[in-house]
Amino acid sequence: MMIYVVLNLYCICFVFLNLTGTFYIILLSGLSSWSFRSHTCGELRSHHVGDTVTLCGWVQYLRQDLFVILRDFSGLTQILIPQEESASHLKAVLCDLTAESVIKVTGTVRRRPAGQANKAMPTGEIEIHAENVEVFNVCRQLPFEIKDFVKKSESLRMQYRYLDLRSSQMQRNLRLRSQLVMKMREYLSNTHGFVDVETPTLFKRTPGGAKEFVVPSREPGRFFSLPQSPQQFKQLLMVAGIDRYFQMARCYRDEGSKPDRQPEFTQVDIEMSFVDQAGIMSLVEGMLQHCWPAEMGPIEVPFQTMTYEEAMRDYGVDKPDTRFSMKLIDLSELFLSTDIEFLRSALGRPRGSVQAICVPSGAKLFTGKDLDGLKQTAKTQFEQELSVVLVREDGTLKSPLRKLLSDSVTEELLNQTGAKPGDLLLIAAASLHTVRPLLGNLRLQCAEILESYGASPRDLSAFHFLWVVDFPLFLPKEDELEQLESAHHPFTAPLPEHAQLLYTDPHKVLGQHYDLVLNGCEIGGGSIRIHKASEQLYVLKNILKEDSSLLSHLLEALDSGAPPHGGIALGLDRLLSIMVGAPSIRDVIAFPKSFRGHDLMSHAPDLVSEEELKSYHISVRWPTDGGGEDEGK
Amino acid sequence: MMIYVVLNLYCICFVFLNLTGTFYIILLSGLSSWSFRSHTCGELRSHHVGDTVTLCGWVQYLRQDLFVILRDFSGLTQILIPQEESASHLKAVLCDLTAESVIKVTGTVRRRPAGQANKAMPTGEIEIHAENVEVFNVCRQLPFEIKDFVKKSESLRMQYRYLDLRSSQMQRNLRLRSQLVMKMREYLSNTHGFVDVETPTLFKRTPGGAKEFVVPSREPGRFFSLPQSPQQFKQLLMVAGIDRYFQMARCYRDEGSKPDRQPEFTQVDIEMSFVDQAGIMSLVEGMLQHCWPAEMGPIEVPFQTMTYEEAMRDYGVDKPDTRFSMKLIDLSELFLSTDIEFLRSALGRPRGSVQAICVPSGAKLFTGKDLDGLKQTAKTQFEQELSVVLVREDGTLKSPLRKLLSDSVTEELLNQTGAKPGDLLLIAAASLHTVRPLLGNLRLQCAEILESYGASPRDLSAFHFLWVVDFPLFLPKEDELEQLESAHHPFTAPLPEHAQLLYTDPHKVLGQHYDLVLNGCEIGGGSIRIHKASEQLYVLKNILKEDSSLLSHLLEALDSGAPPHGGIALGLDRLLSIMVGAPSIRDVIAFPKSFRGHDLMSHAPDLVSEEELKSYHISVRWPTDGGGEDEGK
Repeated sequence: MMIYVVLNLYCICFVFLNLTGTFYIILLSGLSSWSFRSHTCGELRSHHVGDTVTLCGWVQYLRQDLFVILRDFSGLTQILIPQEESASHLKAVLCDLTAESVIKVTGTVRRRPAGQANKAMPTGEIEIHAENVEVFNVCRQLPFEIKDFVKKSESLRMQYRYLDLRSSQMQRNLRLRSQLVMKMREYLSNTHGFVDVETPTLFKRTPGGAKEFVVPSREPGRFFSLPQSPQQFKQLLMVAGIDRYFQMARCYRDEGSKPDRQPEFTQVDIEMSFVDQAGIMSLVEGMLQHCWPAEMGPIEVPFQTMTYEEAMRDYGVDKPDTRFSMKLIDLSELFLSTDIEFLRSALGRPRGSVQAICVPSGAKLFTGKDLDGLKQTAKTQFEQELSVVLVREDGTLKSPLRKLLSDSVTEELLNQTGAKPGDLLLIAAASLHTVRPLLGNLRLQCAEILESYGASPRDLSAFHFLWVVDFPLFLPKEDELEQLESAHHPFTAPLPEHAQLLYTDPHKVLGQHYDLVLNGCEIGGGSIRIHKASEQLYVLKNILKEDSSLLSHLLEALDSGAPPHGGIALGLDRLLSIMVGAPSIRDVIAFPKSFRGHDLMSHAPDLVSEEELKSYHISVRWPTDGGGEDEGK
Repeated sequence: MMIYVVLNLYCICFVFLNLTGTFYIILLSGLSSWSFRSHTCGELRSHHVGDTVTLCGWVQYLRQDLFVILRDFSGLTQILIPQEESASHLKAVLCDLTAESVIKVTGTVRRRPAGQANKAMPTGEIEIHAENVEVFNVCRQLPFEIKDFVKKSESLRMQYRYLDLRSSQMQRNLRLRSQLVMKMREYLSNTHGFVDVETPTLFKRTPGGAKEFVVPSREPGRFFSLPQSPQQFKQLLMVAGIDRYFQMARCYRDEGSKPDRQPEFTQVDIEMSFVDQAGIMSLVEGMLQHCWPAEMGPIEVPFQTMTYEEAMRDYGVDKPDTRFSMKLIDLSELFLSTDIEFLRSALGRPRGSVQAICVPSGAKLFTGKDLDGLKQTAKTQFEQELSVVLVREDGTLKSPLRKLLSDSVTEELLNQTGAKPGDLLLIAAASLHTVRPLLGNLRLQCAEILESYGASPRDLSAFHFLWVVDFPLFLPKEDELEQLESAHHPFTAPLPEHAQLLYTDPHKVLGQHYDLVLNGCEIGGGSIRIHKASEQLYVLKNILKEDSSLLSHLLEALDSGAPPHGGIALGLDRLLSIMVGAPSIRDVIAFPKSFRGHDLMSHAPDLVSEEELKSYHISVRWPTDGGGEDEGK
């Protein structure tokens, strides 16, 4: 019984795989070129009946000493074990096979007997009458049984990644990744003349690059650095007249043990000359539309665009999930002359505000525990009290606030929030700086709670792309409020109409920066760059107070005939994980590092002898050596 | 005058660029999509006359206050500066431009006046009557003048790489690289179903990986390593059922200050399952044929194949330059009963041999200094005496050997070597181990000397691809002759017919390894891999005496249903440098490290503060700290 369930699971998976496979037309014959096989295991149909074929693959399982189910990346084929006395040797070999052993079978394609066709299986009309078999490798007992594939722990999956990758889901993810990237390349390179340029990964440490891995060289005390992005190189390529550049760029970021971050990741890195913000946005829209798999449904361009201010105002976050509404509602005016102490006190503070979100059916569905969880988030992450108002079926409120609200305010509250019987209102009062992120966070948490009760606030199969634009160019430093730092990076140009503000009111300047958001995740960001050396120098030296000598080569380059230019970088791993609905980017990377940054298969990082480190003129400072070791952490 | 020379140089260069540009058909409109320009500077022809166009680019130069020559990546266009009084402002702006300033010009396309068309320039029939100009950036005085572009020193080119890349040669090299790689991808991915899989570069140090850069992690004493190739991963992908894998893989090799090696380089990395050696060779031939630029002439497949033994016998090297003959000639039999002491002594040694090469016209062309240089090479690099025999025009010999040779031996010598009047014979006597590499080396040196005198022993525009096969699987270790080491790497499978020899006579085993050679340079190498765990374990443990526990994950993988598989890696940088005739791979890499491994533009590698190193638990061992620091060098 179990074996049939497994088979069906596989069939369904491979049907899916086959569907996505039609996305790109590959000549089937090309899939078997130079190979021992004549056909793949997913390819044979009734029109092949009578053909002599050779298949290679893995033994999925044996059935009743009658059939071997053979698997390769493309699907499953049923091999009929001959029962004649004259083929007893062949029968013995086939019946002796362990699951996951690797064989080559030659035989004749036959139509399955009437009534035995398997419609759930693309090759279900035929079977192969085996005439010859070669066993390439007998599989030992595996660390987990095949039928447990779907349930195994992530650390086991990582340790035996080469087995995990045999799953149809991982096969699909890696193949989709390859095809997606290929289509992007075709669009950029073949259709629009972008040049694929490889930039170095052994580079110089950038100022403040605390997250850059260092690589010791053979010169004492001198280190390369693995860059977080090819930012400087892409700009230099524009100065070099390359005009249009792209690269599927390997980037590095050392974030220690931050979960769900990979120390190396890939970005679709793009830069072009003589372009403005609208141009880059169109380019990205065109590229995504071109590479988007047909079976995921069309995506509409242009994407929705929202300013940073609108995003913060309506969603409390700069990467809103626009698959659902539940927007932030400003109640400040309603409570302007309130007697309620905490509201009045909040409104009295600079940029003080009272805001709410209305959760449809929240009063009906949420438990006390859910509400406590929301209050807990408000308290621990934002140090705020949250006012919870449930709208009863009869329209009355259930809330500690209830007695403090006059009838007219209550009516106006329901009116402004659109709250209906059964809905839940979450109200917070603080400075905008706090109240927006707080409610933005709770909004997402509420959507998840609703979904856990079977409600569907968002269409989980939808893909909502969104541009967020008009970001502030600088933000006050967290630990030193009078000092400004770049909101993104110091190379972003101001809006043309704000160029003069740089010199007078830098904190008011908006930048030509754009973020691409998909379903509430930031999947890309870019900007039009500063192309005048004097402006770049002013930003570095006078506004950011940085040591501009570290970027002297870039400043010199801008002074040597730099064209106006801009670009973008898309996070390929993140984009793919959203497309396939994977819980982690680890599911779209062939050999990812674990949650804690380790390669569980090979045990990297690993110890290196002091002897081997000598040629790099470094030695290990073991934590027991002395004090002060933790400071750098 | 100078200005015209420069113009002509540029025109010739850009004509060339335009020719190579036809190699891939890019819709011209796609080259200006999303751009401020309507057309590129290389695009306008007489059929555009009357159109209003906008061009963007760099000021190549001004001519007589009448013309601005504007350049972008695609070519040059002549801009006519209006002379009317009403356009005086426009004239002033244009006449004020410095070379390499960046502008946008809008104007009308006009046919050049009769007799003024420039046929050397693709846009030479037209000019643009400027109506509007925007100056994006004024270029400062550059570190070298544009007319010196061709002559500047390499360190200056590296320091100002963003200027160097503006040269038509570097533009062509980078664009050719991008197009070549794109065509390879199309062939592999779209036509033959290969999956582009990215493998990690932060990996574990491999046993004996002395050339691997180390990357400290935040765990004390633990390091990642930047791998020299994705070898283990590509094999694991085959075990994972990916079936066909490729990657343009960034690889790392720390060779200190070895000249003309880059610490990071790119290989076209390929692996497939269910394939034999002939299959991989066909695949590579098909791919190179597919991506080969039409203007470089067709390449014929299949490529010539030669065994390792034949290559060593005929060319004295395992990567013969087959563009010319001058093969090694074995004279051992001729001198078997000779009285000449040094020949007899050589022949008496194990594998002793007398060999010669015949240099056509060598006696006529080579000077005494040339001959001394050859003898010097023999002495310093091989510790051997070289016998030089010049064949005079009258057929007599000029050589210290002359008197020692009987008439019949002399006749037989001329006969066997095919030496004609005017030719030069170089004769060496030693063990085959020495005499072959010696003459193989001198053969190449002689070809270069001949070329320096205008002779053409080889067709320098030809591309001779060659497969070298049947390499020995193991070689004696240089410092420990009884111990064997892998000739290539420990994963290469023996020839099927030699599989049993592994267990009895491992030093006699030939491997399923193949090298691809182009014009005497090794541009790729690969093998069919061992796919049985027991065989791999035997090789590691019993033959190579290595600690197999370091590869336990690979051995486990082979035991988990590994298909037969094999692959190859091509050196992309080397291949391209041969294609474009560049003296160094630095000319086909956008931002290479210098000869000594430095980034001369940003000054990497650079100092990193001890404070920053603390989080990696390492400290610098400065050479003055104490003794023993040089040992690791």
